[in-house]
Amino acid sequence: MTDGTMRWAGRGTEPEAVERFYAVIPAGGIGSRLWPLSRADAPKFLHDLTGSGQTLLRGTWDRLAPIAGPDRVMVVTGRAHRAAVEQQLPQLADRNVVLESEPKDSSAAIGLAAAILERREPGVIIGSFAADHVINDVRRFRRAIVEAISVADAGYIATIGIVPTEPAIGFGYIEAGERLEVPGAPSALAVTRFVEKPDLETARQYVDSGRHVWNAGMFISRADVLLDEMAKTKPDLVAGLRRLAEAWDTPERGAVVDQVWPGLEKIAIDYSVAEPAAAEGRLAVIEGDFSWDDVGDFASIAKMQSGGRTSDLAILGEHARVLADSSSGVVVTDRDRLITLIGVENIVVVDTEDALLVTTSEHAQRVKSVVDALKISGRTDVL
Amino acid sequence: MTDGTMRWAGRGTEPEAVERFYAVIPAGGIGSRLWPLSRADAPKFLHDLTGSGQTLLRGTWDRLAPIAGPDRVMVVTGRAHRAAVEQQLPQLADRNVVLESEPKDSSAAIGLAAAILERREPGVIIGSFAADHVINDVRRFRRAIVEAISVADAGYIATIGIVPTEPAIGFGYIEAGERLEVPGAPSALAVTRFVEKPDLETARQYVDSGRHVWNAGMFISRADVLLDEMAKTKPDLVAGLRRLAEAWDTPERGAVVDQVWPGLEKIAIDYSVAEPAAAEGRLAVIEGDFSWDDVGDFASIAKMQSGGRTSDLAILGEHARVLADSSSGVVVTDRDRLITLIGVENIVVVDTEDALLVTTSEHAQRVKSVVDALKISGRTDVL
Repeated sequence: MTDGTMRWAGRGTEPEAVERFYAVIPAGGIGSRLWPLSRADAPKFLHDLTGSGQTLLRGTWDRLAPIAGPDRVMVVTGRAHRAAVEQQLPQLADRNVVLESEPKDSSAAIGLAAAILERREPGVIIGSFAADHVINDVRRFRRAIVEAISVADAGYIATIGIVPTEPAIGFGYIEAGERLEVPGAPSALAVTRFVEKPDLETARQYVDSGRHVWNAGMFISRADVLLDEMAKTKPDLVAGLRRLAEAWDTPERGAVVDQVWPGLEKIAIDYSVAEPAAAEGRLAVIEGDFSWDDVGDFASIAKMQSGGRTSDLAILGEHARVLADSSSGVVVTDRDRLITLIGVENIVVVDTEDALLVTTSEHAQRVKSVVDALKISGRTDVL
Repeated sequence: MTDGTMRWAGRGTEPEAVERFYAVIPAGGIGSRLWPLSRADAPKFLHDLTGSGQTLLRGTWDRLAPIAGPDRVMVVTGRAHRAAVEQQLPQLADRNVVLESEPKDSSAAIGLAAAILERREPGVIIGSFAADHVINDVRRFRRAIVEAISVADAGYIATIGIVPTEPAIGFGYIEAGERLEVPGAPSALAVTRFVEKPDLETARQYVDSGRHVWNAGMFISRADVLLDEMAKTKPDLVAGLRRLAEAWDTPERGAVVDQVWPGLEKIAIDYSVAEPAAAEGRLAVIEGDFSWDDVGDFASIAKMQSGGRTSDLAILGEHARVLADSSSGVVVTDRDRLITLIGVENIVVVDTEDALLVTTSEHAQRVKSVVDALKISGRTDVL
């Protein structure tokens, strides 16, 4: 346990919400590598992929609502998912549901939230957090966010970098530089650069260097700072987002959305903001010493469930009935029929009503290419 | 092609039925190694396991009816399977359907058929053939049966031994001895002994010896000879069977069945007849130079489908939809949902409505032990 944890525990109360902070959860993305569980109409964030009994989205809410306050969490999602999101998050305020008429990637989603919140509350600090990641130590997470908010208050765009526990090749990395002297953020470092998913050898070098952390895709900054940075690279996009924000809380919203949304550029916030800001020295990283996973594929689920051991069989599914003999890997099912495994190791079995997947942990990343093949062949009934 | 084959082909007509011969098909046995496809209510012989479009039972009929004549094929099966059997074999005469009130193994099934047929037609020669084996060369099969009938006519119990193509460990073997001088049966040899499924090293020695053939479980003999041989080891069983036969074609049948059937000893015909007769020098073997398989497990299905290659993926199922990438083995399904395989080799996937099996060719024999485990744990809903 850390000092912070002990102090909180000692008080005997839950920590209070952090002032001026708004959490933004962009809940988009199907999670193609988790097909056939994740679908267009049942994306990854609406599944329980940890066996906790709750969806990843709900887990994200439960982490963020105590930090920001339950009335200060905004969800940006597709119109098709509105009902599911509201069902998962009954405390979510109507005004904090931002519906996209079509997906426009993370710059538009987070940028729109920033623009709306900045109009409502000038000077607000926002943090954006994927709806479908898993974090186990909520107190350490909170501590990192509190530091990041101090850094954001000082004008930086802050991100949380996860201390690597292994040379993972499925994540991007952040290379950290000099320590920043920001009050309230003793562990903040300048970001030298972002690097894409490396090969294994490069990943090993990163981990050995001690200067690289995993990019968990969390960005904490003042809303106006974020928009200003985005405007440097994507002025048209930000102009569109500001027009949307201006109309958002008025009767004009629908008309302006219809007019502006289709023309917004689709681009990930990593490219529109994070990388350019890093090059300018405006990006800071707080090291997060908690366990984190983006649940990128079924191998990741197997690993999380088994606590890193490879000899176990992880089973996910409320009604799962599995009989296994000399088998390891992961079974994910939303059915109740009997699944029998005999002598299969590191197997991945995903059983849904209309599609079955059998692969291995080693090949779990290739699931996406199957989804692409299904799209190309027109078999969209199972996508 | 052989001389025999060419002669038949040269005539331009189908060969005629063989006189005095009756084919008996004991259609019992669930085929536990083929679970979850084979079930108590859908045993192996009622499945198409070759991709031919017809059940194994129907394939057996199609092989035998031209040899014996369609009105001279008798099927011994369980009461529960009567409708399915009659649906598969519309030409099967009512009097040739023998229903078992409970399974009593092969001595009772074949012995009862022998006793009924001997009463109806003294001196009849019967051949018994499993309902769930696969034979590809029907003309060579017929030629072997014709030889076996000559041997049976000379007072022997004949069996067909399959010339091994590999050191299989899933079959029993027959060790052949001296050539028998029986007119019309130039390839008949005396049987020295039957041997159980060997280990691989022993199987290799058998194949190298040139004196061992696979025991395909086919027995051809005069009905009275078979019963007399059985009576030497199991007099009570044969007495019961004779009582049943006496009443069979009379209004007393039901009462006698109720009285006698429950007390019949359960024993395989290999032990009650074949092994003792071999020891006495009463057993002859005709070498069958046709391809044969008892479809004992899913590995056997995969091998048959792939023609012996291991790199292929065999797919069985009328409505199967399979998308495979870098995968080999066998998929068996009675469903139409999409099955996707990625990077799994020698895999066995069997997809049914209420149970899914995932194993490998190597472990296919272990399926039976799973069925046993399910029985013990009371999960009989999927058996």
